[in-house]
Amino acid sequence: MGLKKGTAIVLVSGGMDSCLCAAIASKKFNLAFLHVSYGQRTQKRELKAFNDIAEFYGVKSKLVVDISHLKQIGGSSLTDKRIEIKKAKLKSSGIPNTYVPFRNANILAIAVSWAEVISAEKIFIGAMEEDSSGYPDCKAEFFKSFNEMISKGTKPGSKINVVTPLISFNKKQVVENSIKLNAPIHLSWSCYTETQIACGECDSCALRLRGFQLAGVNDPLRYKKNPNYV
Amino acid sequence: MGLKKGTAIVLVSGGMDSCLCAAIASKKFNLAFLHVSYGQRTQKRELKAFNDIAEFYGVKSKLVVDISHLKQIGGSSLTDKRIEIKKAKLKSSGIPNTYVPFRNANILAIAVSWAEVISAEKIFIGAMEEDSSGYPDCKAEFFKSFNEMISKGTKPGSKINVVTPLISFNKKQVVENSIKLNAPIHLSWSCYTETQIACGECDSCALRLRGFQLAGVNDPLRYKKNPNYV
Repeated sequence: MGLKKGTAIVLVSGGMDSCLCAAIASKKFNLAFLHVSYGQRTQKRELKAFNDIAEFYGVKSKLVVDISHLKQIGGSSLTDKRIEIKKAKLKSSGIPNTYVPFRNANILAIAVSWAEVISAEKIFIGAMEEDSSGYPDCKAEFFKSFNEMISKGTKPGSKINVVTPLISFNKKQVVENSIKLNAPIHLSWSCYTETQIACGECDSCALRLRGFQLAGVNDPLRYKKNPNYV
Repeated sequence: MGLKKGTAIVLVSGGMDSCLCAAIASKKFNLAFLHVSYGQRTQKRELKAFNDIAEFYGVKSKLVVDISHLKQIGGSSLTDKRIEIKKAKLKSSGIPNTYVPFRNANILAIAVSWAEVISAEKIFIGAMEEDSSGYPDCKAEFFKSFNEMISKGTKPGSKINVVTPLISFNKKQVVENSIKLNAPIHLSWSCYTETQIACGECDSCALRLRGFQLAGVNDPLRYKKNPNYV
């Protein structure tokens, strides 16, 4: 593997994409893991996945941040129990109500603050433009613009950069690359609603299962229902 | 005053600058006030100022957010020997060690999330380039870049913009404009150390008092000491 050059902060939600991101970052960088909870229904389960993946990679530099003020702001079914999480309609257009407005900007701003303190150079985020349900803050041009903003708002010479290795991937490619890089996807968690056995029916489960089905691989997680999404 | 066109979120710390910002925004917009606390010593007194100024302008849409995770990030540097060295460098280059890296980006990201939910168009922040001790995220070019990033990361048609009416002001001009616009500066609070009668000697009191002295106006607040700073 050669000498690792510097430190990369990886945003590890606990899902499959961030798990692959960690695998990719681990090839070239010393890892620091950032987990952000925001009062989402499954936050304890996601934190467990975060810690399990950190243990897998031997990551000691961990930061867990609560931004439940996003819950206070509301506007999303992930954080507002009054809004029902819709069952997956993968082909429907428009922005789903699970969207937390400007969430990635909030999370990345925290990551940049931390990066300045620990002198990290890179911030890895597993955003995917295709599978992002149209969230504006998951698009390549958003991250490009965010990087320009970082260069203006941090100390000269900081050179902190957001890196999006999965930006053009689909979930099938996430599965394929995770297997190729031995990413511990069996430790990851994707379900929006359940914390023991995944539901198999929420948007997040549907996207994940379709990825495995298209890759012709069995998901190591257990599901209550396992519909055919292909 | 004519018809107010839309809603503006004003970042109201409770200090004199944000008080003037509220006065400026009130001329053209319906107001929503955002207050961010981060574990600072005088946070209860600042929150009182926030509420008093909100009452003065009849603002009902208020959001108070705690981001003490920024303290968590800063605090972690105290336990990391590698970073302590850097802190010494920071001090010598003129940026005080109270500086929270990328703080304005964090605060503005919260404001944008809220703006999307309540359909606000503008976010007013009382940043002043001259009095900002060289913080990179207080400079005009940072805010310009932040606005470009907002346009990429929010729903099409959101049109949310950060506005910095005081960016080229000094504290003398803040005092003069506050009086001109009848901003309730008697309700604002600036002191870093006291919560009943301002000390008159901390950095924040000194900047404020110098502003009043240069403008030839008496500060309506009471001070324990009132040195001549001109």
